[in-house]
Amino acid sequence: MVHTGACIAAIMGEGGSKKYGLTWKWLQVFKNDQDRRDLVTCGSAAGITAAFRAPVGGVLFALEEMASWWRSTLLWRAYFTTAVVAIILRALIDVCLRGKCGLFGKGGLIMYDVTSANISYHLRDVPPVLVLGVIGGILGSIYNFLLNKVLRLFNFINEKGIFYKIILACCISIFTSCLLFGLPWLASCRSCPSDTSEPCPTIGRSGNYKKFQCPPGHYNDLASLFFNTNDDAIKNLFSKDTDSEFHHLSMLIFFVTCFVLSIFSYGIVAPAGLFVPVIVTGAAYGRFVGMIIGSHSNLNQGLFAVLGSAALLGGSMRTTVSLCVIILELTNNLLLLPLIMLVLLISKTVADAFNGNIYDLIMKSKGFPYLETHAEPYMRQLTVCDVVTGPLQIFHGIEKVGNIVHVLKTTGHNGFPVVDEPPLSESPVLFGLILRAHLITLLKKKAFLRTPVPIGPDAFLQFSSNDFAKKGLGNGDKIEDIKLSNEEMEMFIDLHPFTNATPYTVVETMSLAKALILFREVGLRHLLVVPKVSGHIPVVGILTRHDFMPEHILNLNPSLTRGRWKRLRFRFPRLGRLIREL
Amino acid sequence: MVHTGACIAAIMGEGGSKKYGLTWKWLQVFKNDQDRRDLVTCGSAAGITAAFRAPVGGVLFALEEMASWWRSTLLWRAYFTTAVVAIILRALIDVCLRGKCGLFGKGGLIMYDVTSANISYHLRDVPPVLVLGVIGGILGSIYNFLLNKVLRLFNFINEKGIFYKIILACCISIFTSCLLFGLPWLASCRSCPSDTSEPCPTIGRSGNYKKFQCPPGHYNDLASLFFNTNDDAIKNLFSKDTDSEFHHLSMLIFFVTCFVLSIFSYGIVAPAGLFVPVIVTGAAYGRFVGMIIGSHSNLNQGLFAVLGSAALLGGSMRTTVSLCVIILELTNNLLLLPLIMLVLLISKTVADAFNGNIYDLIMKSKGFPYLETHAEPYMRQLTVCDVVTGPLQIFHGIEKVGNIVHVLKTTGHNGFPVVDEPPLSESPVLFGLILRAHLITLLKKKAFLRTPVPIGPDAFLQFSSNDFAKKGLGNGDKIEDIKLSNEEMEMFIDLHPFTNATPYTVVETMSLAKALILFREVGLRHLLVVPKVSGHIPVVGILTRHDFMPEHILNLNPSLTRGRWKRLRFRFPRLGRLIREL
Repeated sequence: MVHTGACIAAIMGEGGSKKYGLTWKWLQVFKNDQDRRDLVTCGSAAGITAAFRAPVGGVLFALEEMASWWRSTLLWRAYFTTAVVAIILRALIDVCLRGKCGLFGKGGLIMYDVTSANISYHLRDVPPVLVLGVIGGILGSIYNFLLNKVLRLFNFINEKGIFYKIILACCISIFTSCLLFGLPWLASCRSCPSDTSEPCPTIGRSGNYKKFQCPPGHYNDLASLFFNTNDDAIKNLFSKDTDSEFHHLSMLIFFVTCFVLSIFSYGIVAPAGLFVPVIVTGAAYGRFVGMIIGSHSNLNQGLFAVLGSAALLGGSMRTTVSLCVIILELTNNLLLLPLIMLVLLISKTVADAFNGNIYDLIMKSKGFPYLETHAEPYMRQLTVCDVVTGPLQIFHGIEKVGNIVHVLKTTGHNGFPVVDEPPLSESPVLFGLILRAHLITLLKKKAFLRTPVPIGPDAFLQFSSNDFAKKGLGNGDKIEDIKLSNEEMEMFIDLHPFTNATPYTVVETMSLAKALILFREVGLRHLLVVPKVSGHIPVVGILTRHDFMPEHILNLNPSLTRGRWKRLRFRFPRLGRLIREL
Repeated sequence: MVHTGACIAAIMGEGGSKKYGLTWKWLQVFKNDQDRRDLVTCGSAAGITAAFRAPVGGVLFALEEMASWWRSTLLWRAYFTTAVVAIILRALIDVCLRGKCGLFGKGGLIMYDVTSANISYHLRDVPPVLVLGVIGGILGSIYNFLLNKVLRLFNFINEKGIFYKIILACCISIFTSCLLFGLPWLASCRSCPSDTSEPCPTIGRSGNYKKFQCPPGHYNDLASLFFNTNDDAIKNLFSKDTDSEFHHLSMLIFFVTCFVLSIFSYGIVAPAGLFVPVIVTGAAYGRFVGMIIGSHSNLNQGLFAVLGSAALLGGSMRTTVSLCVIILELTNNLLLLPLIMLVLLISKTVADAFNGNIYDLIMKSKGFPYLETHAEPYMRQLTVCDVVTGPLQIFHGIEKVGNIVHVLKTTGHNGFPVVDEPPLSESPVLFGLILRAHLITLLKKKAFLRTPVPIGPDAFLQFSSNDFAKKGLGNGDKIEDIKLSNEEMEMFIDLHPFTNATPYTVVETMSLAKALILFREVGLRHLLVVPKVSGHIPVVGILTRHDFMPEHILNLNPSLTRGRWKRLRFRFPRLGRLIREL
């Protein structure tokens, strides 16, 4: 659902899909980076809201996990989205409860209701919860670790082509089904409780007491867990007064199976989520712990299951506030909040000691260039000069069309410094930064000059602001598509009007950490590096997101492995660093 | 509570109070701006947690309202704080419920519990809620407007001295008490309901049915509202099955009185909060609306009261997510969430059409230089040159002690550009930025040179990083305290090692909006403005927070009243702006 929401938002952000004729005029206003980012964030928030019926949790999750950086406007937009979703959702539930939409009608606003007016726990219940949190954190980090490894393997297989993809998916699914059908045979039959509201045993699709191979009047607890939808299984595990329903061995089996299966079923082509599987696994884990502790605690096993899911979620997702709220909105048990916060606190802390959160790992394994918000310590020891890589492509204020075409064809850069040289200025001066997309637009319009003379802002007359609007993914024009005659190649373009004359710049001696903060906080694409003493060269280089990537930096300075960066520590005395970093 | 928490945090941030000997060595680590900011934020979060027993709400409120800008680290820290507070709180409640702490023992984790398992509302209940939201928004903005005016008046009076302050406080309190005692006479006596758990009428301190002047068997509903603590009043208003307890006239009187009193009792020297009064007022307002609508809606008056508080809070505080969560944690009614979100959405939107949120207004009226996150439209039309004000004080790389002292004494600037001139460099070069505090430290240490020769980083040898640590408020040394002999005045200091050699700079032609984004996002104190063409002057000016203030800008360009900034719109063609703002 999260993914779906984000996708829809992304499509909207690109002004609808031309291919399918789904495009509107008013969507044009979204044709810029920021709005597109916000849209995607809001989309995922809406997705969570719809999936878990947790509007506030949706906002927070989107802000804590999705958004690269927070702005109050973004908060307001996300809130607006989720509020609308929540209200519509509530209205639909209202309609469905009147039985107007068949199977969909089930479930209210709260999915796994564990409300208990008189839940009581005391200080002596805290130690088990602490243990739960610690183990949950460790399990969560193991989960991330394994998922990461499996994903790399799957990516390797999937790259081999669509055929292998399908084979892989089939294998996993067959394996899964065999496991799910085979394992229940391990569990022994249990006699039905006398005081149960539901029919026992049940053979049908739903129901807590599955008959499976058992004689009448008995049920197979493991089967009852496996042969249910995830939601029913979670409801079942969270439920209060079923302490005797499951055998602790079958609970353990269920936990291990879920743990393994949820890892293996993620990376395949068939859509599989992260959230719900982790909740199920965590619930099983928590309930198992609850069974072991048994009567030594006031908390019943259902609450242990809730805390278990919290622990595992905290251990793998590593978000705090949003998880709190989501769990709160899922279970509607406010009295449990202090314990949930405690568990999340511990599990996150423990897990952070081992590896990063699951989304970062997935992004890394997929190779997205995601820029961390915080600067690595060794970055304080480097100057931007250390990471700038040449050769630097520079355009003159009035440039020959041929050169532009040649540079665009030979390099992949997206931004180029524009420099004025004599006779335009008495000394070389950095005029600004021009984007590849804009250059291509200029070439397409063929607004060329026969002689290298500057033209003023009336150069805009031939362009509409839409020409310079951000193109959708893949919709951008390629330089190869532009055909120019040799005569045109000899003509000139006055780049001045179309150049961003006030780009953000840093001096070459600035520490990398400081530059990263600027780059990250302001959300730049290009950062120009100017020399300390502006001599004959007005610009030293240009930094892009790629240049701030730890991998890139470590490649440039092999001596600088993360472990050994300390060797550099004394390149600047401590006080000097303190002052540099001001 | 919020204020208290923030204060404690601030004291910690300044490394304890030397005056009262409350200082620790480890608190030294907090002696920098960022940590101090974070501490205050966490402190206020803790305050809200303790006040409303709403840990998650506390985090969100702190982030949404207090924090100037968000970082995931800050979120984590705030979460940690509130989690700890929540757990301790829960433990104390646990202790108190065993009756070990006398009067404190009252109340559980949820303050105003309005849980209702089978609350049902349908589409036909939405219109009244919409009306509630709209009117609530209008009331909220009126509240802010009046509070602002009253505060200005009070500030004017309070400035006259302590005597006037006390007089003012006394007047308000006398006025309040008269009002509270006098008004109940307006209400007619009502006969006690037969089916009530509590004694009716009551004469004691607590209880819902106050006797006041009524004959036995009767109670005065207005008195029952007035002669209660705010908490009891809120509980009373939120309660479900008391639809017939109050007369709508006395509810109206109560609402108006609370509205007026809460405004007048805020600015006086006696401590008075904003949150609870607004909740009471809103509850009264909501309940009144509920009474008018009466049986036309499925929602009972208690829920209307909750929604009313939400509406008024949204209308005056203008926060969304945090309010949602706080109300959720106060009332523990998750099923009401969609309606609460809807109300907040509407009331905030309506109120934003009139004026800013209450905290901004208060900050303005107190004259704090708070920098808005978003740039005003007219800022796109101005360049940084338009707001830079001279005269600019520049230091040379190796400066005469006398000059430094003279400049520090004659100007109030906190940062000075350091420029190298021949013979140190062949042309004037901007070396960096040095802070007033650091200069004073240098002067105090008297590490002077007889001759103007540069010394290397070994200049640090005489300093510890503690000398350059951020001083507490008011603990900083004054330049006046430093006594120097005439001989010393003639000596030199090599500023190079102590200068921040890589300050953030912008070119003079950059649009003000763009510079503001840099200034705000990176959280700068000083921003150096360098010329486009670095000629004989390497630095044009220095921007501080003050220079970005709309008041300052409007003073500089009188033609540029907020209404008339549109006149400037075409200073740059639209496309040109689009490219400049990249």
